[in-house]
Amino acid sequence: MYPNFINHIRKYVDLDDHSVALLLKYITPLKLKRKEFLLKEAQVCQSIYFVEKGCLRMYFVDNKLNEQITQFALEHWWMTDHFSFQDNKPSPYFIQTVEKSEILAISTTSFEAMLRELPQMERYFRIIMQRAVAAAQLRNKYLYEMSKEEFYQHFSTSFPEFVQCVPQYMIASYLGLTPQYVSELRKKKL
Amino acid sequence: MYPNFINHIRKYVDLDDHSVALLLKYITPLKLKRKEFLLKEAQVCQSIYFVEKGCLRMYFVDNKLNEQITQFALEHWWMTDHFSFQDNKPSPYFIQTVEKSEILAISTTSFEAMLRELPQMERYFRIIMQRAVAAAQLRNKYLYEMSKEEFYQHFSTSFPEFVQCVPQYMIASYLGLTPQYVSELRKKKL
Repeated sequence: MYPNFINHIRKYVDLDDHSVALLLKYITPLKLKRKEFLLKEAQVCQSIYFVEKGCLRMYFVDNKLNEQITQFALEHWWMTDHFSFQDNKPSPYFIQTVEKSEILAISTTSFEAMLRELPQMERYFRIIMQRAVAAAQLRNKYLYEMSKEEFYQHFSTSFPEFVQCVPQYMIASYLGLTPQYVSELRKKKL
Repeated sequence: MYPNFINHIRKYVDLDDHSVALLLKYITPLKLKRKEFLLKEAQVCQSIYFVEKGCLRMYFVDNKLNEQITQFALEHWWMTDHFSFQDNKPSPYFIQTVEKSEILAISTTSFEAMLRELPQMERYFRIIMQRAVAAAQLRNKYLYEMSKEEFYQHFSTSFPEFVQCVPQYMIASYLGLTPQYVSELRKKKL
């Protein structure tokens, strides 16, 4: 059951079968079609989401009414609006499936109860969050030192699965480029 | 002893006096002058640092040999190169005091041993890392939606203590602006 989820946790902490059974009480599995929403602007983000299968995107709508994508989550990745989830505040974001997806949701209340019952999950999430901080630190460095073209080349080399399955206009939005420019870069690369 | 450190932990988890005594075994206190280094490029970042007093900056040297500041840490903040600290890899960064500082260091080995002995510290760091992810998510959104001028105004309103104690050229480097431009923005604000 949910092999990606259980294997991902077991990469970082010990989790025996009894603990798996306890853990699953806190999980709500969701089977979603393409372009279904998990969160809309002004709602409180009530859950943290694990991508068992498929892909999510997070975006906000800017002053000019453009959708500005700020993050993607591929298989094995977690996604939430952290401030909204932690502080119970309305979110400025939308979270939506990019394709048909299987998502595991843990609500705020379940998250706290799970951490109390299963201390190894406290450890797992400490490690996951620490790795997310490391990734944010690295991405931040790239933003300082790379041109947009270098950033695209680096991005498409590091995550070929994105470039395969995510529409070009979404990658352009994420990278702050025009779709035309991404199309040119792609041709250059080929 | 180290009131900022202990109070910061007690904001998030219970820590009785016995646990404080256990915790302090893992801490190395450092009294540093202005402009002393905790990390230099190509070294492995062996510790995570808490600012009990003073201020740290993290920077790398770019292709044009400019110092590019990517982060500051004020009192109560943590700083490390997370990838280097977690994966024992050489760092591209320098970490240096901005002013005379009192720093508490926890080495990689002590960090693991501390988490094993004091499970409430696992919880504390899970919360701290989660808040760091939330802050990175918010900063990322600002980079998409704000002009550099708006970012400076927002930054100087949110963190007046930075603008007071950090030299103008460092703030300029952090924000990716020229010192002249920061000086103009500052005059505008006054």
